Amino acid sequence: MRNDAHDDDHFHDECGIFGIYGTTDAAALTALGLHALQHRGQEACGIVAWDDKVPARVQSSAPEDIEDPIGNANGVFSAHRGMGLVSDNFGSQSVIDLLPGTVAIGHNRYATCGASMLRNVQPIFGDLSFGGFAVAHNGNLTNAYKMREKLVLDGSIFQSTSDTEVIVHLVARSREKTVIDRFVDAIRQVEGAYSLVVIAEGNMMGVRDPFGVRPLSLGKLGDAYVLSSETCAFDIIGAEFVRDIEPGELVVINASGLTSLKPFEKTQSRFCIFEYVYFARPDSKVDNRSVYEARKRIGVELAAEAPCANADLVVPVPDSGVPSAIGYAEAAGLPFDLGIIRNHYVGRTFIEPGDQIRHLGVKLKHNANAEVIRGKSVVLVDDSIVRGTTSRKIVSMLRAAGAREVHMRISCPPTKYSCFYGIDTPTSDELLANKMSVPEIQKYIGVDSLAYVSMDGLYRALRQPGRNNETPQFCDACLSGDYAIPLTDFEGREDRTRKVSSLGEAAA
Amino acid sequence: MRNDAHDDDHFHDECGIFGIYGTTDAAALTALGLHALQHRGQEACGIVAWDDKVPARVQSSAPEDIEDPIGNANGVFSAHRGMGLVSDNFGSQSVIDLLPGTVAIGHNRYATCGASMLRNVQPIFGDLSFGGFAVAHNGNLTNAYKMREKLVLDGSIFQSTSDTEVIVHLVARSREKTVIDRFVDAIRQVEGAYSLVVIAEGNMMGVRDPFGVRPLSLGKLGDAYVLSSETCAFDIIGAEFVRDIEPGELVVINASGLTSLKPFEKTQSRFCIFEYVYFARPDSKVDNRSVYEARKRIGVELAAEAPCANADLVVPVPDSGVPSAIGYAEAAGLPFDLGIIRNHYVGRTFIEPGDQIRHLGVKLKHNANAEVIRGKSVVLVDDSIVRGTTSRKIVSMLRAAGAREVHMRISCPPTKYSCFYGIDTPTSDELLANKMSVPEIQKYIGVDSLAYVSMDGLYRALRQPGRNNETPQFCDACLSGDYAIPLTDFEGREDRTRKVSSLGEAAA
Amino acid sequence: MRNDAHDDDHFHDECGIFGIYGTTDAAALTALGLHALQHRGQEACGIVAWDDKVPARVQSSAPEDIEDPIGNANGVFSAHRGMGLVSDNFGSQSVIDLLPGTVAIGHNRYATCGASMLRNVQPIFGDLSFGGFAVAHNGNLTNAYKMREKLVLDGSIFQSTSDTEVIVHLVARSREKTVIDRFVDAIRQVEGAYSLVVIAEGNMMGVRDPFGVRPLSLGKLGDAYVLSSETCAFDIIGAEFVRDIEPGELVVINASGLTSLKPFEKTQSRFCIFEYVYFARPDSKVDNRSVYEARKRIGVELAAEAPCANADLVVPVPDSGVPSAIGYAEAAGLPFDLGIIRNHYVGRTFIEPGDQIRHLGVKLKHNANAEVIRGKSVVLVDDSIVRGTTSRKIVSMLRAAGAREVHMRISCPPTKYSCFYGIDTPTSDELLANKMSVPEIQKYIGVDSLAYVSMDGLYRALRQPGRNNETPQFCDACLSGDYAIPLTDFEGREDRTRKVSSLGEAAA
Amino acid sequence: MRNDAHDDDHFHDECGIFGIYGTTDAAALTALGLHALQHRGQEACGIVAWDDKVPARVQSSAPEDIEDPIGNANGVFSAHRGMGLVSDNFGSQSVIDLLPGTVAIGHNRYATCGASMLRNVQPIFGDLSFGGFAVAHNGNLTNAYKMREKLVLDGSIFQSTSDTEVIVHLVARSREKTVIDRFVDAIRQVEGAYSLVVIAEGNMMGVRDPFGVRPLSLGKLGDAYVLSSETCAFDIIGAEFVRDIEPGELVVINASGLTSLKPFEKTQSRFCIFEYVYFARPDSKVDNRSVYEARKRIGVELAAEAPCANADLVVPVPDSGVPSAIGYAEAAGLPFDLGIIRNHYVGRTFIEPGDQIRHLGVKLKHNANAEVIRGKSVVLVDDSIVRGTTSRKIVSMLRAAGAREVHMRISCPPTKYSCFYGIDTPTSDELLANKMSVPEIQKYIGVDSLAYVSMDGLYRALRQPGRNNETPQFCDACLSGDYAIPLTDFEGREDRTRKVSSLGEAAA
Repeated sequence: MRNDAHDDDHFHDECGIFGIYGTTDAAALTALGLHALQHRGQEACGIVAWDDKVPARVQSSAPEDIEDPIGNANGVFSAHRGMGLVSDNFGSQSVIDLLPGTVAIGHNRYATCGASMLRNVQPIFGDLSFGGFAVAHNGNLTNAYKMREKLVLDGSIFQSTSDTEVIVHLVARSREKTVIDRFVDAIRQVEGAYSLVVIAEGNMMGVRDPFGVRPLSLGKLGDAYVLSSETCAFDIIGAEFVRDIEPGELVVINASGLTSLKPFEKTQSRFCIFEYVYFARPDSKVDNRSVYEARKRIGVELAAEAPCANADLVVPVPDSGVPSAIGYAEAAGLPFDLGIIRNHYVGRTFIEPGDQIRHLGVKLKHNANAEVIRGKSVVLVDDSIVRGTTSRKIVSMLRAAGAREVHMRISCPPTKYSCFYGIDTPTSDELLANKMSVPEIQKYIGVDSLAYVSMDGLYRALRQPGRNNETPQFCDACLSGDYAIPLTDFEGREDRTRKVSSLGEAAA
Repeated sequence: MRNDAHDDDHFHDECGIFGIYGTTDAAALTALGLHALQHRGQEACGIVAWDDKVPARVQSSAPEDIEDPIGNANGVFSAHRGMGLVSDNFGSQSVIDLLPGTVAIGHNRYATCGASMLRNVQPIFGDLSFGGFAVAHNGNLTNAYKMREKLVLDGSIFQSTSDTEVIVHLVARSREKTVIDRFVDAIRQVEGAYSLVVIAEGNMMGVRDPFGVRPLSLGKLGDAYVLSSETCAFDIIGAEFVRDIEPGELVVINASGLTSLKPFEKTQSRFCIFEYVYFARPDSKVDNRSVYEARKRIGVELAAEAPCANADLVVPVPDSGVPSAIGYAEAAGLPFDLGIIRNHYVGRTFIEPGDQIRHLGVKLKHNANAEVIRGKSVVLVDDSIVRGTTSRKIVSMLRAAGAREVHMRISCPPTKYSCFYGIDTPTSDELLANKMSVPEIQKYIGVDSLAYVSMDGLYRALRQPGRNNETPQFCDACLSGDYAIPLTDFEGREDRTRKVSSLGEAAA
Repeated sequence: MRNDAHDDDHFHDECGIFGIYGTTDAAALTALGLHALQHRGQEACGIVAWDDKVPARVQSSAPEDIEDPIGNANGVFSAHRGMGLVSDNFGSQSVIDLLPGTVAIGHNRYATCGASMLRNVQPIFGDLSFGGFAVAHNGNLTNAYKMREKLVLDGSIFQSTSDTEVIVHLVARSREKTVIDRFVDAIRQVEGAYSLVVIAEGNMMGVRDPFGVRPLSLGKLGDAYVLSSETCAFDIIGAEFVRDIEPGELVVINASGLTSLKPFEKTQSRFCIFEYVYFARPDSKVDNRSVYEARKRIGVELAAEAPCANADLVVPVPDSGVPSAIGYAEAAGLPFDLGIIRNHYVGRTFIEPGDQIRHLGVKLKHNANAEVIRGKSVVLVDDSIVRGTTSRKIVSMLRAAGAREVHMRISCPPTKYSCFYGIDTPTSDELLANKMSVPEIQKYIGVDSLAYVSMDGLYRALRQPGRNNETPQFCDACLSGDYAIPLTDFEGREDRTRKVSSLGEAAA
Repeated sequence: MRNDAHDDDHFHDECGIFGIYGTTDAAALTALGLHALQHRGQEACGIVAWDDKVPARVQSSAPEDIEDPIGNANGVFSAHRGMGLVSDNFGSQSVIDLLPGTVAIGHNRYATCGASMLRNVQPIFGDLSFGGFAVAHNGNLTNAYKMREKLVLDGSIFQSTSDTEVIVHLVARSREKTVIDRFVDAIRQVEGAYSLVVIAEGNMMGVRDPFGVRPLSLGKLGDAYVLSSETCAFDIIGAEFVRDIEPGELVVINASGLTSLKPFEKTQSRFCIFEYVYFARPDSKVDNRSVYEARKRIGVELAAEAPCANADLVVPVPDSGVPSAIGYAEAAGLPFDLGIIRNHYVGRTFIEPGDQIRHLGVKLKHNANAEVIRGKSVVLVDDSIVRGTTSRKIVSMLRAAGAREVHMRISCPPTKYSCFYGIDTPTSDELLANKMSVPEIQKYIGVDSLAYVSMDGLYRALRQPGRNNETPQFCDACLSGDYAIPLTDFEGREDRTRKVSSLGEAAA
């Protein structure tokens, strides 16, 4: 299970989304759903609820970061957004009470550096001609900057630097009649990776881009429909998993039930392979596979591809390395032990104290369990190496605690390329595997041996025939450099792999 | 001098505006200017500054309520807005440091009931195709709702419920080439009362509507140009008063100096007469008349029109009644004394304690100076009677303190009509003078005699030939019901005099 | 009326106290009383209430700055204290609801530099063997440091640096039986100036030191007894003034009514003369004289002692100079006008912006009313000159606004000596009048003439035979250097007049 | 590893303590040490630092919750305390900068219900005759109430409701000459469980009560001495473990180095057995045993005592059940899997939403990993059952996720008795094992079989001969009811086992 908030040596997903239609507890259940999806983004969160009844306090206007119901005769929107955890923002009944109604959508955000301001926190809302339009987005649009330029020239005024706002303006300007047609009109104009949940004119909508890069699942809680990035959010509210939303599918949920639309030409799907390696919670199923089982099988593949005959025990880097380490240990017949203990009490702002004790760094979160590893040859299992900083510190910590040998095993192939589809990766020139060979990395992080699972091994663990096959089923651009979706905003840039994390920075 | 924050028995002006061009201390001087204009609005305030140098931390995007510089290669905008007083929001150097640059505009707001949210706090900013556009507005547009409806149908998305935002969208959509032509294009489409200060493309602009309802003066501080609602804001920074901006005049200030444009057909000016009676600071000149001297002269007229032969002394309702009381006392040859003492320490939230002691009400702010008035016949001078509640309490307080007689003298004619041009008045059916004759009011508030200055007396005190003349020089709609500027948003409403204080509520 | 919060060129009183016994609204009425006394201290305030009924949530313990009822079977104490204004801390019903009971005392504090921390905010509370003991103090003890040293050696642990806490420890250690005897035992051991209100064992007590330096008045509101530093706090709640507590008198109020005790040998009283000159509100009576009338009479004496034949008008430095200026103008037959306008909107933290514009300083609060004073010879009336900084700035401002001549008149004799009895004065070497002769001061502040009222004139204005009489009735140590009460803590110090503002600093 | 903040179905330890002597980074290192000890108390934390140099800003007084240096010519104390996590209170350099000096002590607190107020947050400080005295306490005094009563009668005034403050007053009143003798004098008068770290007169002192109930270890970091509740706090700063402080040992650390005193008669030691079962971090050594190894061995004993032949896999209740589950799995030859996933993102205030969805309860923290357990017979390993509520919910969750059988194994004997020595347990009548037999509990929590490790098995796992031996080496009162230390404050109470969690409530 992943909860590496603030971990500068991991990839970061951009968000989790959730929506529920048809229950009086819509906002409370959305808060719980977002809590279950907290691992997908800890910097900020928000909920927009919609009530078909018009309360006394109504204003026909855009929503407020501080709560303020918005609406007209057709219903009322309420919103609350805040920096920080779901439990800190939505943990009290008094906040939930400000979000009445039977439909709600929510969003967890991993804020990228320059844009961590409240007005970028989703769901994004627009007070359009037909009424309010609220949208929460997981993914990243790759032509948002160009679309924004065009819209601004035509007189649109943007409130945020979020790529997602482009969709709201496209809906606002669409000449289609119904809100569903306007929304289809809008998403047909954007490129990139996106799973979206939307509230508009009493409908809840959910859509995945034609490649299906980001996950989105459909569930039911009694008569209420639920949409969620991962199934663990169904579990927390006791909802039943129904099926995944298909790549390119748009579901419209309203008083008439659920309607499935396919507004795009069919294309080959590309589900993000890193959801299995790192992002998703182990107790979730994403794209219909158990994440925990997938990780264990990666461990099994690793044990077969890169055995470590004379090792004494297998130790995971907690928490994300645990399932693969259990898989490795079982396959290799080695003991599994918690040789590293993780401190979960890392609050929002533990600035490491002054220079003189800066070297203490990583130990804020990890400590070697010396009694377990002293004098031992250890197989250390982690999910990835990004910049290598954390790995170096952990290896050094194990050696200081008396480990005789440290053999590192990584449960994915080397990550050499940036992601442009919704994951906050460093630019490729910061990626260790882009700059060094495996033997160089082994030396750099100071281990006795180092092995990554192979691309084929990874595909096998996911029960697919492997990448060398003609039809790769996953988006593995960060591992292979194969970017299936056009990178329109980056065309003509000398270094297309340069990281562009927000519209604002793209402009600089 | 006026500082009746929270006084529910007075009119309230909507705002004060200030701008400065061409000094490295632009934001600091704007904070001081706003502080001097604090009496024009205490609920919220904001400053937007513009720097022609591009700092390291840049984002091409809309501004943030929390500071966040915005800009492109042509310069950078920074903004800060907050609820409360200027000194509470801009009193620290650390805030000023976040607002670098040589041009700044600012705004004080008197928030009306439903719309007291941060996103309505001005200056309003838009990130348009040519760069940022910031505007601060004193006044009220009377066709904003209709314009907004049209813009939204065309796909514009509003961030606030402020009428002022209409101007920003009109500029965004204008097909004119230069930012000045776009701005002219925009203000030609709006109706109502407005004095505006603007920053766009390195220009500071100032404009008054063709009727010149709201004040706006031009000053200089060394080489820097200054615009301000009142001259007291020039005094606080040591700037020199140059002249008033004329009704219908647009001044454009940039590196080439000041250019005056007259984009409107000439019309008869209608400066708000209530600025003299109540709103402006006594040490200001507005529309080139000393407010203090005007008020004293009203007192003199009152003494002539409504003498009080056997009175012992003249007592002002502090603070706004003081100059007229001094004028009355001098003209009548009566002693002037502080028979009522005002407590200025009323913070933001003195909710009056529970029902059982609610009758204490008015005494939070005023106390009778019993030693001065016991056994005396008192001439009590105030500037206006709105709902009458405060007057009743004060009279009752004076009697309880031993006053033998209380003769009330009001330094303006009865206020019978709502204002639609930027002053927050009750609906006309809440105005005491709309419902009662003067003898009825005298009885209602419990005085031995009551007199208002006549319309002619008021005009005489302002050195004008009087209202009965063919060319009334002031907007006195609240006294006369003569609304010179069209009330487009209210056409067809059965009760045109019904108060509509914000776009949102107009829609309800 | 005085409200010079943060004015570094005035004396500052240390506090106002208030208490009420026998009403269900005790805390709400105390909040109102403190609001009326706000001019006596704006840095912090507090209320302790006592309820004879034991509520559900009870703890036998010391009070909390955040509310926390304290009590035992004999009743429950509740407390709230905070930095800032009464209206900011006690303006909401929710806070008042946390302070139940029929007895309450309160305190306003002017915090001196080093000790402006919450734990020094009064009322001070101790959980003693007989139950809670709460005390609010106006004044300053002059042997507190020596008493504290002795108590600490015996094992007492102090919570604050306040001199007042000494009294609580003396009560705690007293071997007397009743709480009244214990309290008498304690106050007999302390020296200095003090008016105190106390709650203990269901009694409210009020006492003035034998010299009666600080004021304390008794009032009634129906059957409830009220104690207050000034009568203006009676007015705000509609209470009736009964009489002043006498110097050296202790009143005990409980279910049996009011008992007056005289626990000290009789001595000559010494009421603080500066209460009339500056501290008290003009609408108050202190020591049975109207403050407003006293100030007007000082103006009359000044006009007689220091006429200004060719002047055009009399201008007060607002607000405290107004009554004396009215008196002067009436006596001299000169017009009275508001030649200086004061901005009351100075919030808590208007740090003057950067160095380059620091000279703007004083104008944050005052502005010349140029239309009134241009070309005129002005008599400028103020209550005192402390360091001279403010006076210089105001005079310079008047001249810049066009005053032809400025003649300054001060409504008290030169303040040459520090106060050790509860007023926060600079050390004597910072007092302008201690370093310069009147002609030197005249030159320093840049006026055409300067005159102070004489000591005899001041006494005459207060209807006393004058200081040269054998029995000076006032404490005028700051003017005369005659310290009637021993300065035990300062004995042996080379410079007895050196300012010692808190115990902590005395130790340094 | 334990981090069950807010878990109402576990025991809670009262605190962790830390101290360091002789390094310029004393406060920063203490913050890190407290962070490592965060699992011992998450409600509040505090640090007091001592500097032998006297800085400019000095006050001889008690410390402030907001920082305020305190001191005299012999050095200066600084303090900061706050509710919440160490990282939230001490995570910024600006706070650390306010705590200068070479000696610091710190405290983590698990606040019990009624007394969670800031003034009870430790370290507790007193400004005594010889200077400041700061103390941090892990444990609970059992005669504090009686001692407090006596001290208050003698005139001592308590600031808090903490039992620890009794020690400060006893030191203040001691007639011994040196601060060390005074401290010995004080601790000889108190009874109960305590490990203390103290700063006084430039000494750091550490002491364990004669029974050694609570842990305290000595480490070194270069020349600096370190004291800590657990060794994991040595690891985080890179300090070396030296030895445990012995039961009844007082170490005095100052410029002369470390001196060991034995101020008590020798008695049989009684180290808390629950530190191994639940409280201490698995990577710590307490009382010289590895916690992780101890827990694994308990799992091994459990597997031997209560095998589960036909089970498919072993699943821990995370996180505290993990080591025992690994031990059980290894011994039983069964697979170990994460059948329950824990969500660590539980912020401070996740109030469970309204009644209608209250049944969701436990899932805020735990979710079944359905893919792993569906159709399986599961051995579920947890460390204890307190009220049984959490266990019931978890078992029900596993069954809902498809577990075929659930066999529960508990890594300690039934907890039937309250703890009076520093652990926040429910009263005995709330303890499930006090009310039900094992078969009844099995039925109540709904498992197919239930077994606790035996007392002998637990002692064996800890490498001790077992409890039936004549010399029990542990305090196991919560399991056995054998209270070795007198419960003076509870004598004569009918139900001695009734829980008394604070002095205040004892009095009620």
